[in-house]
Amino acid sequence: MAEMMRAALFVEPGRIVLDDKVIPDVGPGDALLRITTTTICGTDVHILKGEYPVAQGLTVGHEPVGVIEKLGRNVEGYREGQRVIAGAICPSGYSNACLDGLCAQDGQSGAHGLKPLGGWRFGNTIDGSQAEYLLVPDAMANLAPVPDGLSDEEVLMCPDIMSTGFAGAESGNIKIGDTVAVFAQGPIGLCATAGAKLRGATTIIAVEAVPERIEMAKQVGADVVVDFNKTDPVEEILRLTKGRGVDVAIEALGLQSTFQQCLQVLKPGGTLSSLGVYSEDLTIPLSGFHAGLGDHKIVTSLCPGGKERMRRLMNAIASGRVDLKPMITHRYSLDQIEEAYLLFANQQDGVLKIAITP
Amino acid sequence: MAEMMRAALFVEPGRIVLDDKVIPDVGPGDALLRITTTTICGTDVHILKGEYPVAQGLTVGHEPVGVIEKLGRNVEGYREGQRVIAGAICPSGYSNACLDGLCAQDGQSGAHGLKPLGGWRFGNTIDGSQAEYLLVPDAMANLAPVPDGLSDEEVLMCPDIMSTGFAGAESGNIKIGDTVAVFAQGPIGLCATAGAKLRGATTIIAVEAVPERIEMAKQVGADVVVDFNKTDPVEEILRLTKGRGVDVAIEALGLQSTFQQCLQVLKPGGTLSSLGVYSEDLTIPLSGFHAGLGDHKIVTSLCPGGKERMRRLMNAIASGRVDLKPMITHRYSLDQIEEAYLLFANQQDGVLKIAITP
Amino acid sequence: MAEMMRAALFVEPGRIVLDDKVIPDVGPGDALLRITTTTICGTDVHILKGEYPVAQGLTVGHEPVGVIEKLGRNVEGYREGQRVIAGAICPSGYSNACLDGLCAQDGQSGAHGLKPLGGWRFGNTIDGSQAEYLLVPDAMANLAPVPDGLSDEEVLMCPDIMSTGFAGAESGNIKIGDTVAVFAQGPIGLCATAGAKLRGATTIIAVEAVPERIEMAKQVGADVVVDFNKTDPVEEILRLTKGRGVDVAIEALGLQSTFQQCLQVLKPGGTLSSLGVYSEDLTIPLSGFHAGLGDHKIVTSLCPGGKERMRRLMNAIASGRVDLKPMITHRYSLDQIEEAYLLFANQQDGVLKIAITP
Amino acid sequence: MAEMMRAALFVEPGRIVLDDKVIPDVGPGDALLRITTTTICGTDVHILKGEYPVAQGLTVGHEPVGVIEKLGRNVEGYREGQRVIAGAICPSGYSNACLDGLCAQDGQSGAHGLKPLGGWRFGNTIDGSQAEYLLVPDAMANLAPVPDGLSDEEVLMCPDIMSTGFAGAESGNIKIGDTVAVFAQGPIGLCATAGAKLRGATTIIAVEAVPERIEMAKQVGADVVVDFNKTDPVEEILRLTKGRGVDVAIEALGLQSTFQQCLQVLKPGGTLSSLGVYSEDLTIPLSGFHAGLGDHKIVTSLCPGGKERMRRLMNAIASGRVDLKPMITHRYSLDQIEEAYLLFANQQDGVLKIAITP
Repeated sequence: MAEMMRAALFVEPGRIVLDDKVIPDVGPGDALLRITTTTICGTDVHILKGEYPVAQGLTVGHEPVGVIEKLGRNVEGYREGQRVIAGAICPSGYSNACLDGLCAQDGQSGAHGLKPLGGWRFGNTIDGSQAEYLLVPDAMANLAPVPDGLSDEEVLMCPDIMSTGFAGAESGNIKIGDTVAVFAQGPIGLCATAGAKLRGATTIIAVEAVPERIEMAKQVGADVVVDFNKTDPVEEILRLTKGRGVDVAIEALGLQSTFQQCLQVLKPGGTLSSLGVYSEDLTIPLSGFHAGLGDHKIVTSLCPGGKERMRRLMNAIASGRVDLKPMITHRYSLDQIEEAYLLFANQQDGVLKIAITP
Repeated sequence: MAEMMRAALFVEPGRIVLDDKVIPDVGPGDALLRITTTTICGTDVHILKGEYPVAQGLTVGHEPVGVIEKLGRNVEGYREGQRVIAGAICPSGYSNACLDGLCAQDGQSGAHGLKPLGGWRFGNTIDGSQAEYLLVPDAMANLAPVPDGLSDEEVLMCPDIMSTGFAGAESGNIKIGDTVAVFAQGPIGLCATAGAKLRGATTIIAVEAVPERIEMAKQVGADVVVDFNKTDPVEEILRLTKGRGVDVAIEALGLQSTFQQCLQVLKPGGTLSSLGVYSEDLTIPLSGFHAGLGDHKIVTSLCPGGKERMRRLMNAIASGRVDLKPMITHRYSLDQIEEAYLLFANQQDGVLKIAITP
Repeated sequence: MAEMMRAALFVEPGRIVLDDKVIPDVGPGDALLRITTTTICGTDVHILKGEYPVAQGLTVGHEPVGVIEKLGRNVEGYREGQRVIAGAICPSGYSNACLDGLCAQDGQSGAHGLKPLGGWRFGNTIDGSQAEYLLVPDAMANLAPVPDGLSDEEVLMCPDIMSTGFAGAESGNIKIGDTVAVFAQGPIGLCATAGAKLRGATTIIAVEAVPERIEMAKQVGADVVVDFNKTDPVEEILRLTKGRGVDVAIEALGLQSTFQQCLQVLKPGGTLSSLGVYSEDLTIPLSGFHAGLGDHKIVTSLCPGGKERMRRLMNAIASGRVDLKPMITHRYSLDQIEEAYLLFANQQDGVLKIAITP
Repeated sequence: MAEMMRAALFVEPGRIVLDDKVIPDVGPGDALLRITTTTICGTDVHILKGEYPVAQGLTVGHEPVGVIEKLGRNVEGYREGQRVIAGAICPSGYSNACLDGLCAQDGQSGAHGLKPLGGWRFGNTIDGSQAEYLLVPDAMANLAPVPDGLSDEEVLMCPDIMSTGFAGAESGNIKIGDTVAVFAQGPIGLCATAGAKLRGATTIIAVEAVPERIEMAKQVGADVVVDFNKTDPVEEILRLTKGRGVDVAIEALGLQSTFQQCLQVLKPGGTLSSLGVYSEDLTIPLSGFHAGLGDHKIVTSLCPGGKERMRRLMNAIASGRVDLKPMITHRYSLDQIEEAYLLFANQQDGVLKIAITP
């Protein structure tokens, strides 16, 4: 008889529940992880609300820290019992997209090897990490051993928000001496702020109104925080930059208003690096776009994944360059995950990230 | 008494007229060109129609081929009588924007050295090239000697449309083996097609309906031309790429419809390289944008200028890599320029570009 | 009893012989190809001469065109009977090197996923393509279907020399309007010339002395060919560029003399793109290096592989952008391969490339 | 009668002396600075020793901090009395090299606008900054106002060693998570270490033996310092990286031994970023170069200059991202400069940089 585990399942819009589920079989290229720590992402809240559709009964979650319970028979280079993480995005490695440097849009063996968001599988197209066990496909491309001395909580941001936030800075092609604005300092925006600092931005202007997030923004790298409840962020950023505008504006919220503000504070020749998940059409206002002649760039990034990315991010943690552990404001057991969703979805009690331990 | 010349002046919306104007004095860093050939650009038609405002009495035009009549006293490295061109965009060379690689957004000595479209001066903020004489500012950064053996007409596209169209291909970061769609095959679009070929695109799909332009598109590099009057271009391009989409889509018209089609035919991870001059807000449809998670890039380019750019483009002509002279479909004297505007603005008689000779 | 095939085996320095060998078993991620056409590479001659050591009894060759005979049980997305090629370099897709964009230095599951030249397996660390059958590892990352309408001979250069030569142009970061020198017009140099043209170089100066190669160089894109038997190539290239030097110099021979000449013709700020296989220490002469202050770049490239690279190269062939088939000057059956080696190693009869058909 | 100033002049190998010199006339595009602080560079020691030849009587020095004494009549955007710096490299802005992004190799109006090291004028081809007054050519491209609140000493490293050292990190194309080795922790090497940190290297291994420099290396960003007097740096770096090698190795000394060690610790696919000034031919050992097939890059960088670069570097100082003032270990008046040279040339008393004040 199949062994069972506890897992957080999407049932219907508004309901993610903890239930029993069969522990999956391990295919030749897979690895089964015993989850030791995971977390809830803003995207999971979109799923909870029914704004991003997934299959009924799917296990949610895409941020795994765990121990290898079992390796598929073709998987080499790892051992059972090893502590590892895997990225939210699990590239196959072999698709045309991957081999072309586009792992996040990986269609695996399907049409042309390309599929929008195709690299995002956990908690989207296959069972995710909010469970006692997680099956990792294409394990040799995705399992990244956790260096000795790093705790679960220290690496918990690597699979998604650290990788995503840093990608916002990287895709913006920040240069030493750049002035960068980061709109919204939720978990992703905070990581974008940290990433901008790590790439050499020397003036980082964060936009946020929640006091705890304003404080955290300063800790991770913001030189100035503009409170949009107290001042118009566009006017204030133009004032701070003496009318010059910013070199790079990072959108980390997913709204028309912040997308538009990014364009309005951008210098001619600047880059809008977009991380937000938008739920409606976007408008590019002509005024902020100089009729299409301003040498602007708008770039979007989906969280980079794969074991090499994870290795690099954990190296950044191990070296002390960044410390994202303070972003973990709450801790729950897997048994309490429904309660954790309630808190997180409603942004109560100054929550940033919640560590979930089975 | 000041010497006079003939020049095409913007008078009011709907009226560009040939009139007398004083030949300007030559400042220390300037050069005075005697224009031998110039042309009319689509942007000039926007000016004519009053859609793009310029000062009353300004001489229009930004595509000069000529002979150095007089050099400012500080200008070295040139001689009077030398055949030269200057780009539509005249960088100062010394501004922060220029030194940061953003010549087209050059604010010269003004605020931070940055100004939207600030590098475009001829026929925009200073007198332009549709005249017997043209004053070129910052001459040492802008005068590019015409290689022996190249005629005026052979280099006439370099100052603007060749530089702009090629920039569409360059900004798109085309790689060998890319599939590229170019929407609209007017003068700019044709140059984008030629540029895409020169960068290594191996499947170029042009979108156009005018028979003469379809024919020309094939000559300059299109592998396939989709006639949007006969078939839906989005469907057809997806069919041609077997559902994969294109790596790079170049917008060369300046309309919401083509901007949107570019996004709709773009593969995940692809780049929309925009050259069009838009006259209203743009909408990014959510469906073509994968909620902002498709790793898309939208890049805009203003015509690169400066003498080094001109040198490179003339080298491309001299080597026979591209031949844009067939795009000159009509020839008028400067005296007939009002007639030329009429023809060009109404796109009569299969006109692509008109050579104007004083 | 195991089935046998004919294969060209390295026996000892000076001896590659055709012999019987067991047709290999097909592992879960492998594919077995029935070779329909292959060829001999300059590197194989290094192996023949004992200059590049391989194991005794290894099947030589790394340029396969064939038909899928059998697929491993985990291989999806292909069908038996399908015509395919695989690159000389066979990335795993899953190693840290691959996921970091360094497929050619792929250590597969070994130390850190990095190994010098580790992506080159065929005819180096595993049996190669000069045989009736070839086992392709990591098949899903490496098998590239041949488009209908392309013959074996048309795609025969894709696995190695086209990919390598083009990489010389790509790594040199050629821009539109660049002047490029390519030293030596053997198969690799000719492909570098073709690649330089495809990237937008507008003056290509090839250096060669063999008449057939001079002729071929002009066909594939050289604007000028400097015959080093008739003139000093450094002096001549400086004369042709009016003392300016070249933007990019591509070394395609592997000797100190040509490496040094590349530096001597390079402009300050230029790039030496090296493709040669060197067999001794190299010297950078101080004079050509401006004491290390000339903003020079020296970049080396190993042949890029993987199915996406092959797809792109075959697309370049299919579109008619390049035609490398004329480089096939001789044709032999696999039975005659020892004779083919004799001809090729001694560069007799104007040989460029030899098609070998089992 | 011409006004006189004190200036440090190169007389003959072994002799730089303080002497009287005429304060130069100010041409139309020039600015005259009254020097308030300057310093001595390792390159000046090469000049002193006769290893780098300059004209007899030339004023030495290329690191000016000062006040605008007089502006040329064509210079706009500045005011007399303003505090400014200028980079060691003074681009014209208008040359082909500048307009092509190669300011340091700027030939001004000369042959093709390209000249090796041509952007380096102060103390090389024109009078330099170790004097009471300095004439800055192409002032509008080169004068960078010092932000309020920054002292002379705080910005003293910007003109040369900060720009050079950072360029070593930038040219190495460091990515987040990279492991970087920096060979030698003199002033340039220390700035390379600081720059590597600023670009996101997460493991920085410095190589140095002088205790004061080891200490300073840790302060500016080194995670580990390898003392080459106590251990073999190649072996130690390979041990520290578990045999993987480093992503980027920065050479900051200018010797064959360190150049070679850089190659020996480099991973396949890694980049050697060279900052050293070499005084003899360099050897690339075959063993460290994988026969030219290791996908290695060797890049050299001359100090980037121009007002925009200076603006960015001063921004990095103002934001507190880096603090290089502790590198100033000694202070002398201009009158004592001969004594300062003695100390600096002999690296006495733990000297790193000396502030010189007229």
